[in-house]
Amino acid sequence: MKAIRFTNEGRSLALNEEPTPKPGRYEVLVKVHAASLNYRDQAILDGEYGGSFQKTGVPLSDGAGEVFAIGEGVTRAKVGDRVSANCHPHWIGGSNLPEYQSDSLGMISDGWLADYILVHENGIVHLPAYMSYIEAASLPCAAVTAWTALNLGSPLQPGQTVLVQGTGGVALFSLQVARMFGARVLAITSTDEKAEILKGLGAEAVVNYCTFPDWEQEILFLTGGKGVDKVVDIAGDKTIVKSAASTRKGGDITIVGFVSGFGGGLPPIDILSRALSVHGTGIGPRTNFDALLKAMDLHKVKPVIDQVFPFAEYQAAYRRIESGNHVGKVVIEVAN
Amino acid sequence: MKAIRFTNEGRSLALNEEPTPKPGRYEVLVKVHAASLNYRDQAILDGEYGGSFQKTGVPLSDGAGEVFAIGEGVTRAKVGDRVSANCHPHWIGGSNLPEYQSDSLGMISDGWLADYILVHENGIVHLPAYMSYIEAASLPCAAVTAWTALNLGSPLQPGQTVLVQGTGGVALFSLQVARMFGARVLAITSTDEKAEILKGLGAEAVVNYCTFPDWEQEILFLTGGKGVDKVVDIAGDKTIVKSAASTRKGGDITIVGFVSGFGGGLPPIDILSRALSVHGTGIGPRTNFDALLKAMDLHKVKPVIDQVFPFAEYQAAYRRIESGNHVGKVVIEVAN
Amino acid sequence: MKAIRFTNEGRSLALNEEPTPKPGRYEVLVKVHAASLNYRDQAILDGEYGGSFQKTGVPLSDGAGEVFAIGEGVTRAKVGDRVSANCHPHWIGGSNLPEYQSDSLGMISDGWLADYILVHENGIVHLPAYMSYIEAASLPCAAVTAWTALNLGSPLQPGQTVLVQGTGGVALFSLQVARMFGARVLAITSTDEKAEILKGLGAEAVVNYCTFPDWEQEILFLTGGKGVDKVVDIAGDKTIVKSAASTRKGGDITIVGFVSGFGGGLPPIDILSRALSVHGTGIGPRTNFDALLKAMDLHKVKPVIDQVFPFAEYQAAYRRIESGNHVGKVVIEVAN
Amino acid sequence: MKAIRFTNEGRSLALNEEPTPKPGRYEVLVKVHAASLNYRDQAILDGEYGGSFQKTGVPLSDGAGEVFAIGEGVTRAKVGDRVSANCHPHWIGGSNLPEYQSDSLGMISDGWLADYILVHENGIVHLPAYMSYIEAASLPCAAVTAWTALNLGSPLQPGQTVLVQGTGGVALFSLQVARMFGARVLAITSTDEKAEILKGLGAEAVVNYCTFPDWEQEILFLTGGKGVDKVVDIAGDKTIVKSAASTRKGGDITIVGFVSGFGGGLPPIDILSRALSVHGTGIGPRTNFDALLKAMDLHKVKPVIDQVFPFAEYQAAYRRIESGNHVGKVVIEVAN
Repeated sequence: MKAIRFTNEGRSLALNEEPTPKPGRYEVLVKVHAASLNYRDQAILDGEYGGSFQKTGVPLSDGAGEVFAIGEGVTRAKVGDRVSANCHPHWIGGSNLPEYQSDSLGMISDGWLADYILVHENGIVHLPAYMSYIEAASLPCAAVTAWTALNLGSPLQPGQTVLVQGTGGVALFSLQVARMFGARVLAITSTDEKAEILKGLGAEAVVNYCTFPDWEQEILFLTGGKGVDKVVDIAGDKTIVKSAASTRKGGDITIVGFVSGFGGGLPPIDILSRALSVHGTGIGPRTNFDALLKAMDLHKVKPVIDQVFPFAEYQAAYRRIESGNHVGKVVIEVAN
Repeated sequence: MKAIRFTNEGRSLALNEEPTPKPGRYEVLVKVHAASLNYRDQAILDGEYGGSFQKTGVPLSDGAGEVFAIGEGVTRAKVGDRVSANCHPHWIGGSNLPEYQSDSLGMISDGWLADYILVHENGIVHLPAYMSYIEAASLPCAAVTAWTALNLGSPLQPGQTVLVQGTGGVALFSLQVARMFGARVLAITSTDEKAEILKGLGAEAVVNYCTFPDWEQEILFLTGGKGVDKVVDIAGDKTIVKSAASTRKGGDITIVGFVSGFGGGLPPIDILSRALSVHGTGIGPRTNFDALLKAMDLHKVKPVIDQVFPFAEYQAAYRRIESGNHVGKVVIEVAN
Repeated sequence: MKAIRFTNEGRSLALNEEPTPKPGRYEVLVKVHAASLNYRDQAILDGEYGGSFQKTGVPLSDGAGEVFAIGEGVTRAKVGDRVSANCHPHWIGGSNLPEYQSDSLGMISDGWLADYILVHENGIVHLPAYMSYIEAASLPCAAVTAWTALNLGSPLQPGQTVLVQGTGGVALFSLQVARMFGARVLAITSTDEKAEILKGLGAEAVVNYCTFPDWEQEILFLTGGKGVDKVVDIAGDKTIVKSAASTRKGGDITIVGFVSGFGGGLPPIDILSRALSVHGTGIGPRTNFDALLKAMDLHKVKPVIDQVFPFAEYQAAYRRIESGNHVGKVVIEVAN
Repeated sequence: MKAIRFTNEGRSLALNEEPTPKPGRYEVLVKVHAASLNYRDQAILDGEYGGSFQKTGVPLSDGAGEVFAIGEGVTRAKVGDRVSANCHPHWIGGSNLPEYQSDSLGMISDGWLADYILVHENGIVHLPAYMSYIEAASLPCAAVTAWTALNLGSPLQPGQTVLVQGTGGVALFSLQVARMFGARVLAITSTDEKAEILKGLGAEAVVNYCTFPDWEQEILFLTGGKGVDKVVDIAGDKTIVKSAASTRKGGDITIVGFVSGFGGGLPPIDILSRALSVHGTGIGPRTNFDALLKAMDLHKVKPVIDQVFPFAEYQAAYRRIESGNHVGKVVIEVAN
C-alpha cells in the first residue's frame, strides 16, 4: 500500500510503498477513503510537539473509510462497514486518562494518510447513510472536541447562548453542534465575509473583532448585560480575558486552542468574581463521537469543507492549512 | 436591643440602642449567642467593597443563636431551637443566582453583630446537640465555602488527594471537610508551627513554602508525580500557577480567595495542557450547610477557634483579624 | 375581587366576592389574565388528595397575568411585567425538598382562579414577548414537569430518542421540549387521529397501542432493537413494565403520572438486567421554568390549547378535564 | 498449567492440564495467587445463565496475582507487579455499554480459576502494598459493585445515611465503602450474630428482619421519620417495596441482586410519591476499581474473608457458597 510517513526527524513527509498490514486480535483494517487535516498536523511538522509523537509514523488523526478485513474476536465491525475512528481508540467513555494518549492516531499509532489503517475495534464508529466519506473524515478531532467542549461543566441546553470564536474547524463545528442542542449562537470573527458564513450556519449575531476590539461589550449587549452561558475559546492568550468578561455568572468557558500563543493569563479574580468554571479539554471519548453522529444523522448536518485535495497533492493540503486562509476543513481524498 | 452598625460611610462601627424588631411573615427572630469574623468583614471597613453593601447595616454574615420568636407561616423553626443561618438565606439549593446577593447577611440585610437578628425561615439551619454556639458561629461563610469548593467539578471521593493552602478559615475547614470525605490532605504553609497545627487536624504532609519556594515540586513528589485531585486555592495571584502545576490531569482547582491581590494570571495553556477545570465559587446553598452539619454531627468535628472576644470588645476582634496572626476563627460571644 | 374557592369540605367550588389582597414584603400581586387546569385539579375535587390541601383555598397551580402591585423589598418584578409563577414559589433551584410543598399554589396557598393572586417574588418568571397569557397559563405544571422529567438521570442530548405516552399535557409538552433539545421522539396513543396530532408536533413515529397491544415490540423495532434513551411514563401501573422493556440498557424512565391507578409493579429484575434508572419527579425548580421559557422564546414554540373557557364558565372547564376528551391544555380566560 | 474448566454443558467443572498461554499485543499474563467466588458463579453451574457464557471456559471473575509476562506494546504493567483486573477489562471509564460484556472474565474470557490468566492491559489494576493477594482477590465483582452502587444518582457524601441488607459480599463491602465515604450505615440482617459482625464493621444500628418483619418502620425511626439517603438493595423481590418505604424523598435505591427471586414488583406510585430514583447497575468501570483501591490504601480497610480453600479443594469452595452460610468472601488460594 501507499503510506505517507514522517521523515527527516519528523520535519517532513514522504511517500512509501509498503506491505498492507494484517489485522491482529480485535483489530480492524480500514481501506481509507478520505483523511482530514488539523492545525495540529502542521504544528507537528513545525516541531511544536517535540518528542511526543512517532517520528516515522503516518500522520493525520482524522479519516474515514470502509472496513476491509477484521481480526480475531472482532464484534463491532464487519467487512464493508462505512466507518471512522475515535482519535484515541481506547478512550471509549468517561473522563480522559493519561493512558489514552498511548495510541493516539497520527501521533503514536499510524494515522490516516495511507491506503489502509489499522484500528482497535473499540475505536470504530459507524457512519450514517447520508454522510459521505469526505464529510466523515472531517469530524474526529474538531467536531468531537466541539461536542465535548460544549458539555463540560454543565450540559448545554436549548435556549442557552454560546459564543464561538473565528472560523476554524472547532469553531464551525461548535456552532453547528450548539444549534443541534437548540442553543442560540453568537460569534466573533475578523471579516464581514466570514461573518456571513457564520450567519449562514445559524449564528444569530456576529461581531467583527477588528471593527470592535472591545467585542466583549457587544456580546454583553447581545445578552442583556448578563453574558453568554458558554464560550468555546479557541485562541487562548489573546481571547481569554475578554471571554471571561463575556460570560454570565456561573457560566462555563472551555479552552480548546492556543492559536494566539502560550503566554498571557487569566487573573484569578476574574474567575472568582463571576464564579466561572474554566476548562481545558481533550478531544473526547468514542461515546461522544457516537452521540455526535446520531445527532448529525437526525438533523442531517453537513460539515463545512474548505477544499478537497487528491492523495497525490497532500503537500498542497498541508500548505492550505498553513496559509490560515481556509474556512472549514481541508480534506484529502485517498480513494473513491 | 444593642446593635453594632456601620457608620462614617461604612468605614467604622458604632454601638446603637434600638428597638428589637418583630418577625414578619416567614421570618424568624434569633437571639444571637455568638458571631464570627471573616477576612471580608475587615475588607468592608477598608473600603474594598465600595458601594456593594448597606452602609448603615449591622455587619457579620456568621453567627448562631436561639430562636426567640417566629412570624406568621413559619414551619421550619420554633421558639427555643438552636440555629444558625445561611449567608444567603434564599439560596436554598442548586447553583448560585445573582438574585441571592440581594439579602446577603451582614452586607445587604442586617448581620449578626447585635443582640437579635431577623432571618427568613428558608435560611435557617439547625445545630447538632454536640456543637456550641461559639463553634456554630464559625461555620456559615468559611466552612460552607470549603464544602462547596471541594465538590465543584467532580464530587470529592475517599482516597483522593486534596491540597489546602495556609491556615485561614477556609483552608482549615477544607482540611477538616476533606478528612470527613475520607480524602488525603496535603498542605502548604509558612511556618513549622503552623505545619504542626495542620498535621494535628489530619494533614498527611505539609510543605513550608518559605523553605521550599518551588513547593509544587514537593506536591508532585508526594503524589507520585501525578499531582493532587483537587486544590482549594485561597490566595489567587501568587499561588494559581503553582496550584495548576500541582494538579493531576483532569483535576479541579477552586479559587476561593484573593489574599495575594488582584493581578497575575493563569496562562490558558496551563489549563488546556492538563485539561484542568478551574472554578470560582460563591459560598454555597443552605443544603450544603445542612449537609455539612450532618457530617460534622456524625464525625463530631470541632472547628478551630483562634480566640473568643466578649461583645463589648468587638473592636479587638476586628484588630485580631486585621493582624493576620490568627489561626482558626475569631469569634465574638454576644450572649451566653 | 372575584375568587373561586373550595367549599363543601373541598368537594365543590363557589364564587366569592372578597377584598383584593395587598402585597406584603417580597410579595407580588398579579392581575390574573388566564389560568389552566390539570388532571390534579379534578382529582382534588374527587377527594383523592384527602387532607393535603387548603379546603377553603383558591384552586389552580397554573396561570399568567400582569404585575399589579409589588410589596416592600421586591426586586425581581415591577408593575406591568407580564409574568407567570412556579407552582412551588420557593423551589428556586436544585433538588426537591419537602419544605417546598408548604406553599404550593392552588394547594396550600391560594391559586390562580381569581382576579388577583399573591406570589412571593422568588416564584415569578417573566414571559417572552411572543407568548400570550393563555399560552403562558398552560405551562407551570405540565411543561415544567416535562422539562424536568426529560433531564433526570442524564441530560437529554440531540440525536437521542424519547418515548412519550398519550396526548395529555405532560406528554405533549415532553414531545415539544424533546424536539427543542434536538431529540427524536416516538409516541404511543390510542387513536389514529391523536397519532396525527402527535406527528404534527414532531413525533417521528407513533404506535397505536390499541392496534398493537405489544407496543414495546414496535418501539424496539423503531430503535434497531436497542430501545429508547428516555421514557416519560405518564400512566404508571399499566405502562411501566412495557416502558422498561422499551428502554435501552442504561436508559432513564421518569414516572410522572398514575392515570391507570396505584397498583401493579415493576419487577426489580427488569431494572437490574437493563441497568435502568427509574425516577419519580416533582414539577421542578423555577430555574427549569426560566430555562423552558428561554428555549421556547428562541424556538417560538406554541403550546397546544384544547379549549379556552371564559371565567364565568369555569365549571365547564372542569367538566372538559373530567371528560378526558381534551387534547392539550384546558384554559380559563379570567381577563383580557 | 492447571486450569479448571466448565464441562458437561457448563453444569460442572473439571481440572485440565494445558499449555500456559503467551501474551499477545497489549496483553498481560498474570500468575494467579488467589481467586474468589460470587453467588453468580454457583448460579452459572445451576443453569441460570443459559447460553450467555462460554461453556468450556475457566470460571471466576475475581482474582489477584503477579504479572508473569507482558505482550507487545504493554505500558500499564511490568513483570513482577502485584495486580488484579476489572471484571470487564475494556470498561475503563464512563457508563456501561453492551460491548463491555464481550470479554467479561469468567463468563466470556477465561477467568481466574487456573495457574495463569491473560488480561488486556486496560483491565489491570495495581494492588496497594498493604493488601494480600487473598484480600485483593475478594474485590473485583462485589467491592467494585458496592462502590458503583453507592454513587449512582447522586454522589455519596459524609453524614448521609446508607441502608445495607444482609451479610453477602456486596452488602459487607457497601458497609465498608460507605464508611470510607464518611457515611452513617444502618443494616438489616437475620440473626443477632450477624448483627454483631455488621456492627463490628461500623454499622451504627442493625435491625433483625426476622424479629421485626416491618423493618422499614425501624429504619424510619432511626432516621427521624425521614428515611435513608441511599439503599443498596441486594435481594430484589422481597425487599424492594420496604426499601422504597425506607428511603427519604428524593433518595436513591440501587438494586444489585435478586437473591429472593425474579417476581414481585415496585408500584410506580411508590417511586412517584417519594420522587425516588431506582437504579440497576453493572459492576463498574476500572476507574471505580482504581478509586476503591486508593481509598482502601488510605484507610487500610480489610475485606471480610469467610474462608480460604486450597486450589485442590475448589469444589468445597463452591459448596460453601451454595450453603449460603458464609459471611464475607470465599477465596481459593491458587499459589502462594
